[in-house]
Amino acid sequence: MDTEFSTGQVLPNERELSARFGVARATLRQALDQLELEGRLVRRRGIGTLIAAPRVGVPVNGRDAGWPGAARSTAWRVVDCTTAPASAALARTLGVAEGEQVHTVRRLRIVQGVTVAAESLHVPAVALPHLAAFAEENDRARGVLRQLERIGVDGESRSVELGVAEAEEAALLERPPGTPVLVVTTQYATAGRLAAVAVSTYRADTCKLTFGESGTVEVATTAVSAAS
Amino acid sequence: MDTEFSTGQVLPNERELSARFGVARATLRQALDQLELEGRLVRRRGIGTLIAAPRVGVPVNGRDAGWPGAARSTAWRVVDCTTAPASAALARTLGVAEGEQVHTVRRLRIVQGVTVAAESLHVPAVALPHLAAFAEENDRARGVLRQLERIGVDGESRSVELGVAEAEEAALLERPPGTPVLVVTTQYATAGRLAAVAVSTYRADTCKLTFGESGTVEVATTAVSAAS
Repeated sequence: MDTEFSTGQVLPNERELSARFGVARATLRQALDQLELEGRLVRRRGIGTLIAAPRVGVPVNGRDAGWPGAARSTAWRVVDCTTAPASAALARTLGVAEGEQVHTVRRLRIVQGVTVAAESLHVPAVALPHLAAFAEENDRARGVLRQLERIGVDGESRSVELGVAEAEEAALLERPPGTPVLVVTTQYATAGRLAAVAVSTYRADTCKLTFGESGTVEVATTAVSAAS
Repeated sequence: MDTEFSTGQVLPNERELSARFGVARATLRQALDQLELEGRLVRRRGIGTLIAAPRVGVPVNGRDAGWPGAARSTAWRVVDCTTAPASAALARTLGVAEGEQVHTVRRLRIVQGVTVAAESLHVPAVALPHLAAFAEENDRARGVLRQLERIGVDGESRSVELGVAEAEEAALLERPPGTPVLVVTTQYATAGRLAAVAVSTYRADTCKLTFGESGTVEVATTAVSAAS
């Protein structure tokens, strides 16, 4: 498979493929499903099944990913900004009381001109006491991001898990609802307190999340001293 | 759903559920598939569909995850160890010539008594010049891990992407083949050179990968100075 077909090429239909590889249709279909999940095939309605381009490595930590307050970053495009009382679930995530006002900036992450992720960035209103009142949504989004930038962040932790894109997210990512996504949840702390939580859904078909890590000399030292 | 059912509870059958929620069987099945991918439902043959326990957070970086050389770690169980010439693909990954000898330690990661990941740890034989010749596989595995521990690591980088468990891996993870997994690829560097590459497949149904990150004060400083 790796050598026989090249990127962008349309595969023969299932009947031909099952004949060529000498496998049953059901087996073939299962194999195609797996290759699609692995990002090696892509199905396009009206065209057929194509060999996918290799996944794009998308940095999710450090400076490359952009601290949420990087308001002038070209990598993110703001969709909207709302301020509303926190639901029970969101309140738990943010460590605030239910019903407390929370700013939510929704934005898209663009890499090489392609939308790779949709993000909801939640910031408790109390964390941004100097936020001006904005009538216009885009101004408010910019205000929230700029205030975050001013605060700065001195700690972050992340989790990555498998999820599926709900209808609205799916539309933002230009994928059908139910598409597998990698859900990255990032907690940003400032002065030892949670300042913001970002929930980002990355397209699992086209993305590979990369973590360039520094500060690991500590690990080396530990390993060496444990051995000596 | 969040309130109506509790962990471990068996769901009513599809017919009952579709009647209760007033949706078509096809719609219901799609919803159940999504909830399964999100790790909120688990299907057990002969029992039915159960409400899943919340996903376990599994640290994948820093000291908690265990540097590959942590030979005495209880978190990993060695499956086998082979030494063989690198295939073209593996050679590319390791940055060595095709056909060069590579040690591969396969092991399982155990968290709270549960197997969460299967890993193949690849180490070019040239990186471990002082490795003794072992007749017994388990001794060799231990030898490779101990040598790595002695070398130490001064840099690591990771990627996370969606994959599916192949037959052998699936068996190690006690899941059916084709199960979605989170594939974590870690490159370990020592003295500026690649010393080892670990390819770990984590069960996507039960795991949430966590990245506790330090050394991010740098990001804060950047953000603040950019704002001033």
